Amino acid sequence: MKKLILVRHGQSEWNLKNLFTGWTDVDLTAQGVEEALNAGKTMKQEGLAPQVCFTSYLKRAIKTLNNILDAMDMDYLPVEKSWRLNEKSYGDLQGKNKTEAVEKFGEEQVLLWRRSFDVQSPALEAEDERSPYMDKRYEGIDRNELPLTESLQDCINRLMPFYTNNILKAFETNDTVLVVAHGNSLRGIVKTLKQMTNEEIIKFNIPTGIPYLFELNDDLTLKQDRFLADEETLKKLMEEVANQGKKK
Amino acid sequence: MKKLILVRHGQSEWNLKNLFTGWTDVDLTAQGVEEALNAGKTMKQEGLAPQVCFTSYLKRAIKTLNNILDAMDMDYLPVEKSWRLNEKSYGDLQGKNKTEAVEKFGEEQVLLWRRSFDVQSPALEAEDERSPYMDKRYEGIDRNELPLTESLQDCINRLMPFYTNNILKAFETNDTVLVVAHGNSLRGIVKTLKQMTNEEIIKFNIPTGIPYLFELNDDLTLKQDRFLADEETLKKLMEEVANQGKKK
Repeated sequence: MKKLILVRHGQSEWNLKNLFTGWTDVDLTAQGVEEALNAGKTMKQEGLAPQVCFTSYLKRAIKTLNNILDAMDMDYLPVEKSWRLNEKSYGDLQGKNKTEAVEKFGEEQVLLWRRSFDVQSPALEAEDERSPYMDKRYEGIDRNELPLTESLQDCINRLMPFYTNNILKAFETNDTVLVVAHGNSLRGIVKTLKQMTNEEIIKFNIPTGIPYLFELNDDLTLKQDRFLADEETLKKLMEEVANQGKKK
Repeated sequence: MKKLILVRHGQSEWNLKNLFTGWTDVDLTAQGVEEALNAGKTMKQEGLAPQVCFTSYLKRAIKTLNNILDAMDMDYLPVEKSWRLNEKSYGDLQGKNKTEAVEKFGEEQVLLWRRSFDVQSPALEAEDERSPYMDKRYEGIDRNELPLTESLQDCINRLMPFYTNNILKAFETNDTVLVVAHGNSLRGIVKTLKQMTNEEIIKFNIPTGIPYLFELNDDLTLKQDRFLADEETLKKLMEEVANQGKKK
């Protein structure tokens, strides 16, 4: 049996400040580290033993992975990092307060930017200091590939080559694969595996720091999926995520 | 100009307890984490920007690297882990107290095990729970390659293929390479680059948590090397390491 485990990074400093984050490289909070350690303990208790790991270029995901591996005593596992697993770019909204954005643009518009499948938020200027063109870590990457803003669809589209050529390919030589990333890049994987419609994936909220286990058939189609947490914890977490965009 | 930066991991729990560690996977202490963060800050101040990193399969080195990268805001760098960068195996001495070993076997014998070039300490039994044959992380590796004990020479010999085929090879596409490992595996690299004799490398103590910068010519021969620390700090650290094996 093949197993794919997805984990969304724990609480970040900007989750706490209610700012649009996207490609901004903010750190985990102490609670975020705790969530990651708990995710690792849960996976260890379930007897899960990944053989290879994937994460994004953003430290909130990388440090979540590092803490998970440390809690499992598996720091030594190979890790591949890719910008294609990054969060959806929020373009010019990045660094702006979500509540203020709702006051300025209206709840409907902000919900469109946050929760529509194909609507992009306003783009960054190419020379903006927040632009990926200005960031050393993306230097080797073709600018035509790097987004100045993204819809969920754009995010999923740029994820897919990496999902197919690296993550799924890893199952040729491994049984258990761990991916630690972000709400929207992980939605791309969930949508594909669960064959969800655009509307279904928009409404689907992945809780932070909860290992999401996909058991796959030999042909890599989905056998079954479940979150590794009790039902009450899950319900509470998913409500929290769903409430994030609402005006306070 | 090519740059190779070596860092020996910070203080581990067993450094503190004065136990032979070798391949035992012990954690960093809080001080060890602090040393790592300081090493990262120093490298950042010096304007060093590695493009690729190498470390061992042991968490005291991996977590030193993770903390260095975090202090440099370069968590996203690619990292390759290899058992060939592990510390010298101390065989059956692993887990034993250094002071007690001196009392039992005599200072001369213990110094031979710790500081000779080609004398191995007593080997582990293949089925000992401390044996690498019993450890999941080494499962994919040919048993003939895995040591039950090692001299410094053995340690350097098993390091060399990785040094040549991975670390030096990385300079084909990168200018700056970071290696975070252990006192004896790093000795192998220092010996080669500085063309030291067996006697010279035995006496050469690498301080923990101090970035050791090698500037290389285009043909990867040594141009110059220096520790990134003030002279007083260095002298103090090197004396500490030299004193470790002495009877207290």
